[in-house]
Amino acid sequence: MALMNGDEYKESIKKVKSILYVQGKQVHDYWDHPAISPTIETVAAAYDLSFSEHREYTTAISHLTDEPISRFINIAQSAEDLLKRQQQIKLASFCTGECIYQCTGTDALNATASSTYDVDQATGTNYHDRFNTWLTYIHQNDLSVSGSITDVKGDRSKRPNKQSNPDLYTRIVERKKNGIVIRGAKAHQSGTIGCHEHLVVPTTAMRQGEEDYAVVCAVPSDEKGVIHVHQFNAGDAMRLAGQGMDHGNVRFGAYSTQMIIFDHVFVPWERVFLCGEIEHSNNLCERFGRIHRCVSSACTSGWIDNFIGIAQALADYNGLGKVKHIRDKITEMNFMGARSYACGVAAANMGYKSASGVYLPNRLFSNVAKLDGALSISECRRMAIDVAGGLVATAPGERDFANPEIGGYLKEFFQGVDDVPTEDRVRMFKLAHHFFTSGGLVEAKICGSGTSQTQLMNIYWLANLEVKKKAARVLCGIEDQSEYDSVVTEYGNKMNSNPERGDDS
Amino acid sequence: MALMNGDEYKESIKKVKSILYVQGKQVHDYWDHPAISPTIETVAAAYDLSFSEHREYTTAISHLTDEPISRFINIAQSAEDLLKRQQQIKLASFCTGECIYQCTGTDALNATASSTYDVDQATGTNYHDRFNTWLTYIHQNDLSVSGSITDVKGDRSKRPNKQSNPDLYTRIVERKKNGIVIRGAKAHQSGTIGCHEHLVVPTTAMRQGEEDYAVVCAVPSDEKGVIHVHQFNAGDAMRLAGQGMDHGNVRFGAYSTQMIIFDHVFVPWERVFLCGEIEHSNNLCERFGRIHRCVSSACTSGWIDNFIGIAQALADYNGLGKVKHIRDKITEMNFMGARSYACGVAAANMGYKSASGVYLPNRLFSNVAKLDGALSISECRRMAIDVAGGLVATAPGERDFANPEIGGYLKEFFQGVDDVPTEDRVRMFKLAHHFFTSGGLVEAKICGSGTSQTQLMNIYWLANLEVKKKAARVLCGIEDQSEYDSVVTEYGNKMNSNPERGDDS
Amino acid sequence: MALMNGDEYKESIKKVKSILYVQGKQVHDYWDHPAISPTIETVAAAYDLSFSEHREYTTAISHLTDEPISRFINIAQSAEDLLKRQQQIKLASFCTGECIYQCTGTDALNATASSTYDVDQATGTNYHDRFNTWLTYIHQNDLSVSGSITDVKGDRSKRPNKQSNPDLYTRIVERKKNGIVIRGAKAHQSGTIGCHEHLVVPTTAMRQGEEDYAVVCAVPSDEKGVIHVHQFNAGDAMRLAGQGMDHGNVRFGAYSTQMIIFDHVFVPWERVFLCGEIEHSNNLCERFGRIHRCVSSACTSGWIDNFIGIAQALADYNGLGKVKHIRDKITEMNFMGARSYACGVAAANMGYKSASGVYLPNRLFSNVAKLDGALSISECRRMAIDVAGGLVATAPGERDFANPEIGGYLKEFFQGVDDVPTEDRVRMFKLAHHFFTSGGLVEAKICGSGTSQTQLMNIYWLANLEVKKKAARVLCGIEDQSEYDSVVTEYGNKMNSNPERGDDS
Amino acid sequence: MALMNGDEYKESIKKVKSILYVQGKQVHDYWDHPAISPTIETVAAAYDLSFSEHREYTTAISHLTDEPISRFINIAQSAEDLLKRQQQIKLASFCTGECIYQCTGTDALNATASSTYDVDQATGTNYHDRFNTWLTYIHQNDLSVSGSITDVKGDRSKRPNKQSNPDLYTRIVERKKNGIVIRGAKAHQSGTIGCHEHLVVPTTAMRQGEEDYAVVCAVPSDEKGVIHVHQFNAGDAMRLAGQGMDHGNVRFGAYSTQMIIFDHVFVPWERVFLCGEIEHSNNLCERFGRIHRCVSSACTSGWIDNFIGIAQALADYNGLGKVKHIRDKITEMNFMGARSYACGVAAANMGYKSASGVYLPNRLFSNVAKLDGALSISECRRMAIDVAGGLVATAPGERDFANPEIGGYLKEFFQGVDDVPTEDRVRMFKLAHHFFTSGGLVEAKICGSGTSQTQLMNIYWLANLEVKKKAARVLCGIEDQSEYDSVVTEYGNKMNSNPERGDDS
Repeated sequence: MALMNGDEYKESIKKVKSILYVQGKQVHDYWDHPAISPTIETVAAAYDLSFSEHREYTTAISHLTDEPISRFINIAQSAEDLLKRQQQIKLASFCTGECIYQCTGTDALNATASSTYDVDQATGTNYHDRFNTWLTYIHQNDLSVSGSITDVKGDRSKRPNKQSNPDLYTRIVERKKNGIVIRGAKAHQSGTIGCHEHLVVPTTAMRQGEEDYAVVCAVPSDEKGVIHVHQFNAGDAMRLAGQGMDHGNVRFGAYSTQMIIFDHVFVPWERVFLCGEIEHSNNLCERFGRIHRCVSSACTSGWIDNFIGIAQALADYNGLGKVKHIRDKITEMNFMGARSYACGVAAANMGYKSASGVYLPNRLFSNVAKLDGALSISECRRMAIDVAGGLVATAPGERDFANPEIGGYLKEFFQGVDDVPTEDRVRMFKLAHHFFTSGGLVEAKICGSGTSQTQLMNIYWLANLEVKKKAARVLCGIEDQSEYDSVVTEYGNKMNSNPERGDDS
Repeated sequence: MALMNGDEYKESIKKVKSILYVQGKQVHDYWDHPAISPTIETVAAAYDLSFSEHREYTTAISHLTDEPISRFINIAQSAEDLLKRQQQIKLASFCTGECIYQCTGTDALNATASSTYDVDQATGTNYHDRFNTWLTYIHQNDLSVSGSITDVKGDRSKRPNKQSNPDLYTRIVERKKNGIVIRGAKAHQSGTIGCHEHLVVPTTAMRQGEEDYAVVCAVPSDEKGVIHVHQFNAGDAMRLAGQGMDHGNVRFGAYSTQMIIFDHVFVPWERVFLCGEIEHSNNLCERFGRIHRCVSSACTSGWIDNFIGIAQALADYNGLGKVKHIRDKITEMNFMGARSYACGVAAANMGYKSASGVYLPNRLFSNVAKLDGALSISECRRMAIDVAGGLVATAPGERDFANPEIGGYLKEFFQGVDDVPTEDRVRMFKLAHHFFTSGGLVEAKICGSGTSQTQLMNIYWLANLEVKKKAARVLCGIEDQSEYDSVVTEYGNKMNSNPERGDDS
Repeated sequence: MALMNGDEYKESIKKVKSILYVQGKQVHDYWDHPAISPTIETVAAAYDLSFSEHREYTTAISHLTDEPISRFINIAQSAEDLLKRQQQIKLASFCTGECIYQCTGTDALNATASSTYDVDQATGTNYHDRFNTWLTYIHQNDLSVSGSITDVKGDRSKRPNKQSNPDLYTRIVERKKNGIVIRGAKAHQSGTIGCHEHLVVPTTAMRQGEEDYAVVCAVPSDEKGVIHVHQFNAGDAMRLAGQGMDHGNVRFGAYSTQMIIFDHVFVPWERVFLCGEIEHSNNLCERFGRIHRCVSSACTSGWIDNFIGIAQALADYNGLGKVKHIRDKITEMNFMGARSYACGVAAANMGYKSASGVYLPNRLFSNVAKLDGALSISECRRMAIDVAGGLVATAPGERDFANPEIGGYLKEFFQGVDDVPTEDRVRMFKLAHHFFTSGGLVEAKICGSGTSQTQLMNIYWLANLEVKKKAARVLCGIEDQSEYDSVVTEYGNKMNSNPERGDDS
Repeated sequence: MALMNGDEYKESIKKVKSILYVQGKQVHDYWDHPAISPTIETVAAAYDLSFSEHREYTTAISHLTDEPISRFINIAQSAEDLLKRQQQIKLASFCTGECIYQCTGTDALNATASSTYDVDQATGTNYHDRFNTWLTYIHQNDLSVSGSITDVKGDRSKRPNKQSNPDLYTRIVERKKNGIVIRGAKAHQSGTIGCHEHLVVPTTAMRQGEEDYAVVCAVPSDEKGVIHVHQFNAGDAMRLAGQGMDHGNVRFGAYSTQMIIFDHVFVPWERVFLCGEIEHSNNLCERFGRIHRCVSSACTSGWIDNFIGIAQALADYNGLGKVKHIRDKITEMNFMGARSYACGVAAANMGYKSASGVYLPNRLFSNVAKLDGALSISECRRMAIDVAGGLVATAPGERDFANPEIGGYLKEFFQGVDDVPTEDRVRMFKLAHHFFTSGGLVEAKICGSGTSQTQLMNIYWLANLEVKKKAARVLCGIEDQSEYDSVVTEYGNKMNSNPERGDDS
């Protein structure tokens, strides 16, 4: 089958009979629900990009079918693939001003492709073939896949198998002849209701005795036992309580997440890709994390570009577009957005082609890219608000303007520069309110793919302290100059070596 | 009349027949409207503080009536007065987790008290007596006053009298025998609907030819021609679209602002306190700004304490309360909150008693305090989200838990540590969502009392560059050592001199 | 005896026969040695301030003799005393561009005054009288005192009494009938060679079994067994290898520290002020730290003012004095300098008069002031270099200009704006080199009075997490509204309570 | 001729009879002068790298001679070339702990190769052949070349031709039949005395009427009229006034710069590569800047690795190597070093092959890389000092330890953990003193290749504000959804377009 466009995707999703609750009520035609339809619209927009001028970035040729596919379901074969993916994500995130909702899927697909190969090589299993069979089906139908990773986790000071409720991390509760039964829940899955399939992967590294938690499998969104709960936030509230311009991002809406509950879901063996192989599921987790963090800076930089656009537009509307201190803040935001993106580019470029043929990004730079993006987007939010001014939080709305008694006053008094209609200026403030306050995007960047400590731990592990200390000893004369050459060798090796570690390369 | 408590205040506000629109509809019993009642509740809580154990901070003795009054309407007579006011604001802001909605009033009252004295001394007018007469009425009835300052401003690159609409800055449109008629609009007035009276002051310094804009006067909230428009934001939306725990700050609600339109409002002379005296209205503006910025760090530090409380509580509930990196972030937040507050304390302490008897804070430190607070609270927001985790943006809500089909799943899967009920944990996340996302408080701190550039300009003006350069010339031998003594004298003088400038003192 | 001026001080120091080594050679007339004479000159300049116009700040009336004394040896009796001390330090540090070298003395004196009172009250000893007797001698002779605190410490992971060498923390090695014998070494004592007396205090809190380390006593600088080793740094090297303008701060020189070795020094009982009373020596340490950190922001802000003066002067000389981005950096530096100082002012203002009569600063704000100052001065260094440009590191020097073959070229080519002589411009760059590179001042601020972790630990201990969490629980409805009043009470109490803790006040 | 090794280089430099003054005295055998010999040693070490295991990075194949050459004189033909150059620089900078002194040469060579091609194409000149002829000579002899760029500039508010002295920017003072005569001076040329040849390029963009300043030419270091003045700094002073361990970086010494004076230097036409072609010399300047900034993050990250090595070593010696707050700071430094380097990698990777065949880096990312590196290394300096402690500024030295009277005390009292000799610990502190205080490296990073404003201006110019604003207008509904597709097209184009601009790519 050929690539789907947005409309075809929308038709396809109506055939998925997922169970979804919004604000405590089951919603059947969820694609029409005001809190959910923008999510579907966003995914559709991403599908439409397969037909844009820039399909070089947004599509790829399947290594399984040799047909064009959405890059969201592509397995990266080269640095170029990974770089184009970043451009895809930056483009799509910027143009919609929203999470694209399929990245966790791409990340999980690539990590699984790599780890199923490894486990088969090491243990003689045939997971990789199974996975490729399923993936061929995905490729042939251009389906969207969500990576179901973040378990609810319970008491974070306890291991998965020491929780008072063993299902707080998704696990195998029964092994049957024809498959397995899983139970658990994945929280805040970005736009997962818009995906056809969920690829379930473990949320963290497991240890001996926790084999039941080392499970990777594919589950159709409307499989029996799968329940979605929309995680209703302030952006949704504004979608319901406001109208028109109040929605801010009028077409693509608020950042949308759902919880997925897997309550005794049966998964046949042909959809099971790891089942207790701890070492390999741990590698898969690390790879998922690094791929996700690599690409994470692409949407971050796209959104920072949105922040810049809004801030500069509002400065123009306020009559201050060319003032030096505004320009300085715009410059600073551009610096930070470009920096995060550059780190992601470096992570893609300094990666390596693994034995499985999957091209994986550099681990150090991926972690650096994510951390920098999270710090930067927070600071850019502050600067954008500082540029735009207080109406970011306090602009009147659609119904106020519509009211005949006060609408005239509002049109009169919220006028900025003469040649911009008041309503345009207020619309732009509503978009700012959406991005900076209610939308949840900045929160998603701070917490998504692990809060800062996760990345910091990775960065510490990759710090190669021994050669750094040795060089210091040689430079100050503690060690003899004859050791100088070995410093050259060791440090140079690190720049080029074991790409799996990716340390300092 | 004695001090009012919260209930008496609520009764009193019901007698104020203000005109208010919410989402395009006029609301009559606004104290009962779900988007407005939390504002009234917050002001009432502040009134109740007059009867708390800490009334030393929250009340004062009127210098006009010698009776106890709320400190919100007190004219500061000493550094101690100003320090106690900061403690009042920190206490009230922390305990309600909300803006207290009366600070602009206190600031405008003190600035007006000072400038009406000066203008009378300089020009023989009798504004100060008029003002004291009105203020005596306020004191006798323990009324709440809002400082109506922020004009809508139109094109910021043009002077008030060069706007295509001359009313974008509030101005005198007619001078009558018995008073004046004003027209204009004040945007994002924090909780102004909860105040009995509006003290109108200019939004910025005026120049010759702009005398009509140099107007200071008092207007009852329900005066003819006064129209309030509630500025509906995401926090309000959640108040309407959610219920119960969804509201986050269940009692005191979202940050609330209204626009006030003055459409040909008549003000009798006895309520007019400046009327075209540019020099004095400019001084009044600067004094308003510095008083507001001085006290601004008090609520900032109170809210940062709220952030800390929420972050630490959630870390505890997640089982991570004693982990080192959490502790580090808590420490960092405490550092920043204390630093901002300390700057405000220094501003109060290093101020001076002006000729009028009004004690004014140090200008440099006031600007430093506000700027630091705005930077700090933004950064603390990021750290608090980083500590708390993704449910800040994505927790399910009241109706989800109430649903019999999914409520059980939610109770099961959002459990944190064993001894904390799931609902408590989720409630705390909802409070986090309120503070960090929908509430608007951080935005208020970034933009309130001027965005960063306003404070930076003040800080530059007060930098005393000449003596700093001179010292450098003497130290490196460009100037003779005989000039050393004059450096000592000049720099020492700056530490002690003209407190109106407040430079480097 | 009356106050000494600078010349009288210089005469007095020549009578002190201290043993001093510089670069491995004993130096007898050390006041004339090029690496030491600027230190003596700096202390002398501070003595001269007792006769300046601003002696209000630099002198005080002794509470023991009722005579005027240098404020360096004053025991603070009030907040005003502490505030004036900060102004003294800011003034002296700015005017000399150098450490004043007597602050550790003042801090140790105040901490000892307070703790000797407490120990006598608690245990019936008579240390306080002894101390006052010795202090009266200091006051009568206007002597300078250094606080000898920082032990060399050895392996920081081990307690003092677990080190392989027990003398790595100064300790009592023998108790005699008429006194004690101490051994140990204090590292990097700022300008201690310029002081008449050393007041030895413990470097950290001690535990049971470490009584020998809990010793406080006064030792004349030239006592038998006391050896000073000058800690030669790059600033000293430039003092020796360069000449004239190369010295940067031509009169007051580089930041100067000495190590003091106490090798079996006998101290008679009348000079022993604590001798094994662990609890009280621990209090003394904490008080020393807080007093030192409180005043630390005063010299920091003075030096940041020097940085500003140099940066602005060089920008002027480069023809860029009014350029916006220069102005922004100057403003930012002024913001940071004022912020640190404001925190110190708040620490002084929000302190308390202890039972001993000694006025002690607020502990939280003191730690905040030091930490902020260390962060700020580092960042200001970067900005000042950025403003000034590369000649900060690379300007030619005195002998280059003096050379007839190349002097003309240098005069020609290092010309900046026309009306400033080339030599003046280069002199200013040499001063910049001194301050930003070789002088050691920034390093002193980062590490002095404890590196950042010391202050952060204090800030964490003072964070009052319980009431902050409780308020969060009440706000989100976990706890009943009836608990609201107790939140008001508890938080308000913290603002006002136990000043010894100084938490959040 | 083959590649030279370090010893061969040293022999070759002895044949260069450059005129050099150090501290006002002419120095003939400058390679033996204590302030200069470390510079020669550093360049020699870089030559030795041509024979190391990592010669893949440090050498290249000349596109002119097809022989191996040092990568310092290579013209980059591909992204891979540029990436390897960054690895070369990171390796060499880290291993020597010093500036490698040849980067400006590489940058100038590449910019000139590119611009001479362009000018010939545009105007029919034959500069490119001339340049290649000279470059072939360089390649054949493996010579080192310095890029002479930074003019002394005089009054920065005036254009080059409006200075009161027209020679403050290097210019053609006479055009002769067989060549040109130039006059001017280039300040703070890193290690230029170690280079055989100087490639003179303009310091900034020129305008019509300033053709005499648009001159590019090659001058042997010992040409008549060329005078070098060593710019003596604190690191040099320590080299002279200290000995042994005092030198810190005992072999490679302090950061070394010289001023070059060109006093009526005759340059024959075959060494003149631009001569008044303003447009092309301006392009050359921009390309020089971007190449230099691209690679600038490589040495920055190498030195940050040195900082990390020193800080961790000292923490180990202090007994604190595994303490959490130390580890946090090490992690933070590693984050910053990796981030800067990643930006440089991205700049190399996202560059383009110009018409001339020279591969040029991405302009936006190059500017981001330099700016981030300058900010990061300053902050890392602060953190490293904070980790290491006060002895960074105050450790005793070689002669102190050698003295029999006090050497024993020092060995005793500066002991850290038991198994590390005291002298080793002190040596490491001396290295820290070198890096953090006296060495000048951080200053070089802040100011080198332009202070921050230069990069910020570039970043602003490349910000593509129009498409960013347009997207905002479409998202909030000001512009019709039909405009959505053009946003996709335009933003996507920017990611891929005109690499000369390099905006947002």
